[in-house]
Amino acid sequence: MLRKNFIMAPGPTPVPPEVLLAGAKETIHHRTPQFLKIIEQTLEEAKYLFQTSNRVYVFVSSGTGAMEAAVTNLVNPGEKAIVVVSGKFGERWKEICQAYGINVVEIALEWGEAVTPEQIEKALKEHPDAKVIFTTHSETSTGTVIDLEAIAKLTKDTDKILVTDAVSSLVAEPLKMDEWGVDVVVSGSQKGVMMPPGLAFIVLNKKAWEVVLKNKCPKYYFDLRYYDENYPDNPWTPAVNMIYMLNQSIKMIKEEGIENIWNRHRILGEATRSAVKALGLELFSKRPGNVVTAVTAPQGIDPKKVTKIMRDKYGVTIAGGQEHLANKIFRIAHLGYVSIFDTITAISALEFTLHELGYPVTFGKGVAAAMEVFNREGVAG
Amino acid sequence: MLRKNFIMAPGPTPVPPEVLLAGAKETIHHRTPQFLKIIEQTLEEAKYLFQTSNRVYVFVSSGTGAMEAAVTNLVNPGEKAIVVVSGKFGERWKEICQAYGINVVEIALEWGEAVTPEQIEKALKEHPDAKVIFTTHSETSTGTVIDLEAIAKLTKDTDKILVTDAVSSLVAEPLKMDEWGVDVVVSGSQKGVMMPPGLAFIVLNKKAWEVVLKNKCPKYYFDLRYYDENYPDNPWTPAVNMIYMLNQSIKMIKEEGIENIWNRHRILGEATRSAVKALGLELFSKRPGNVVTAVTAPQGIDPKKVTKIMRDKYGVTIAGGQEHLANKIFRIAHLGYVSIFDTITAISALEFTLHELGYPVTFGKGVAAAMEVFNREGVAG
Repeated sequence: MLRKNFIMAPGPTPVPPEVLLAGAKETIHHRTPQFLKIIEQTLEEAKYLFQTSNRVYVFVSSGTGAMEAAVTNLVNPGEKAIVVVSGKFGERWKEICQAYGINVVEIALEWGEAVTPEQIEKALKEHPDAKVIFTTHSETSTGTVIDLEAIAKLTKDTDKILVTDAVSSLVAEPLKMDEWGVDVVVSGSQKGVMMPPGLAFIVLNKKAWEVVLKNKCPKYYFDLRYYDENYPDNPWTPAVNMIYMLNQSIKMIKEEGIENIWNRHRILGEATRSAVKALGLELFSKRPGNVVTAVTAPQGIDPKKVTKIMRDKYGVTIAGGQEHLANKIFRIAHLGYVSIFDTITAISALEFTLHELGYPVTFGKGVAAAMEVFNREGVAG
Repeated sequence: MLRKNFIMAPGPTPVPPEVLLAGAKETIHHRTPQFLKIIEQTLEEAKYLFQTSNRVYVFVSSGTGAMEAAVTNLVNPGEKAIVVVSGKFGERWKEICQAYGINVVEIALEWGEAVTPEQIEKALKEHPDAKVIFTTHSETSTGTVIDLEAIAKLTKDTDKILVTDAVSSLVAEPLKMDEWGVDVVVSGSQKGVMMPPGLAFIVLNKKAWEVVLKNKCPKYYFDLRYYDENYPDNPWTPAVNMIYMLNQSIKMIKEEGIENIWNRHRILGEATRSAVKALGLELFSKRPGNVVTAVTAPQGIDPKKVTKIMRDKYGVTIAGGQEHLANKIFRIAHLGYVSIFDTITAISALEFTLHELGYPVTFGKGVAAAMEVFNREGVAG
């Protein structure tokens, strides 16, 4: 049978045709008034994504590059930093810190748990010499979102720097950097921003910049002082065509409205969770977000086979589990350029797949549960 | 909510990204060895679509242009022609014939009926002076497909010329021009050939060509003698970029295999019919084909509202009824570049729409019926 492709993974996510077309435009030289005008307007508009009035710096890198920038611009080797670890991307904060000789104070949680403001508060009290706290807004590996707004209240009027990895949450989950008082936010292009992978972002407030200016950690490519001196231009060669794409995707995000997009993700998340439960499956996360739904594979069903069949037979790319969860979960995203019919497609493909693997399925039961949510939310029917 | 677009109309149909990209290639001059090589290869490969060894002539026109070419190259003003009319496209044969002063012997049927071989046989006996019979393989206006193979048996070894409008059936419904002995087939690009509108095709066998060479009907743009003299080049300026697209679409059709594509359409048609019946709706056609499913709107439901809501609210473009059926039916296609998930999307959107219009719907019931067909046919689950 003819197979069309659907990316229902938590990055890369579907790219709108308008964004792909923008990327296909003529490459112009980056040291020209023409390009400067484009990148200036684009980065100005990008503030909307973060709900900030601070400058948005763009890296030619993956999201991990922006994470490294946050670490090496804010903490010196030998200094203490609090790191929340409850999944693969919390682990990554820890690994980057350790690579630079930073003294990691780890808040170690079970994967799938969400750190509480109380746990952060306790760590801050126990380690008054730790200046920076690294958190993961949406832990993509487990489908968990933390209460970032509540956590920011603890650090807002202190000299502590709250850093969050919003790689998978930006534009998808509510995040109001300035209003909430989050000091540093990092993100990437291939998630809620609806672009291919290739760009990463970092935004810092004034309090964080003061720390950056005194920092002595070794760094070069990700040294934020170069980016600020050259802003809005890039200190190194920018990815010209990806800036075109970013310009177009921000335009589309503004047209839809970020509150509407947050709400769309909430509805898609609820529909997916409802469908999964209707099929008798369990959610893995203790505090599921609306970026990706991690599902515990039922007894006797290999989640690797689920992802393989969905991709190879139905063209629906979902994600498997990472690290020790590889044999335990699969993850269905509802992130970025995703409509109600993408979710219906993913759920029907999941039903076919589970049936093929011998799990008892009444065809249409998960789809019906998702449809009921869409109807109840007033977006369909 | 974010809306993506799905064309589930019986033309234009979805265009694969590979075909769109082929159309975006550099336009070269059409009177060059470079272009001649492309059009030569393309038209040679196009024979596969018709299952013929005869030349395929391509017009820059809509399908109606190819219909006109069939009339004006085969019948002289004042001569008799048998025309089967059981829908809008049968009417079109009649209108073209009448515009050229041809004496139309009409086999007039109710819209939604399929002409039988017996009815054709009777007309042929009653009008021995009628040399040409114009039929509609797939009557798009009613979702009806005729038994063309059986009808061709009546004319194959006679001097009668059997012409069929395969605009919406080509590649979608089995059609073996040479084996069945169909004398003339006309078609267009925006249906089973998976292209945008803009090209039309005509293929004639030797018996038909003998008639063409003696024809005196006034014509110029569609005069087939010019096309044959210049073959594979076009006598007028060909649509260069559409030839690139045709080249790519034929490549994809060959890769999937035409028998597999016929079978895919059969399964999509069965799933759609099963879903529609599960929702308590009635099929309009007396002999439904696998190109488009015409559905009789239930009592109190305005089919124009069904198509409007599906398009404007859900991005799913289906077709309404034409002429006197405008207030009676709507039509869901499963034609061309369509996968099982497109059909599931169309059915779920139909469920939402009918529910909104006050028709009792159990969400997921139609989708489940379609899924059952896909599973029973062994293509999913």
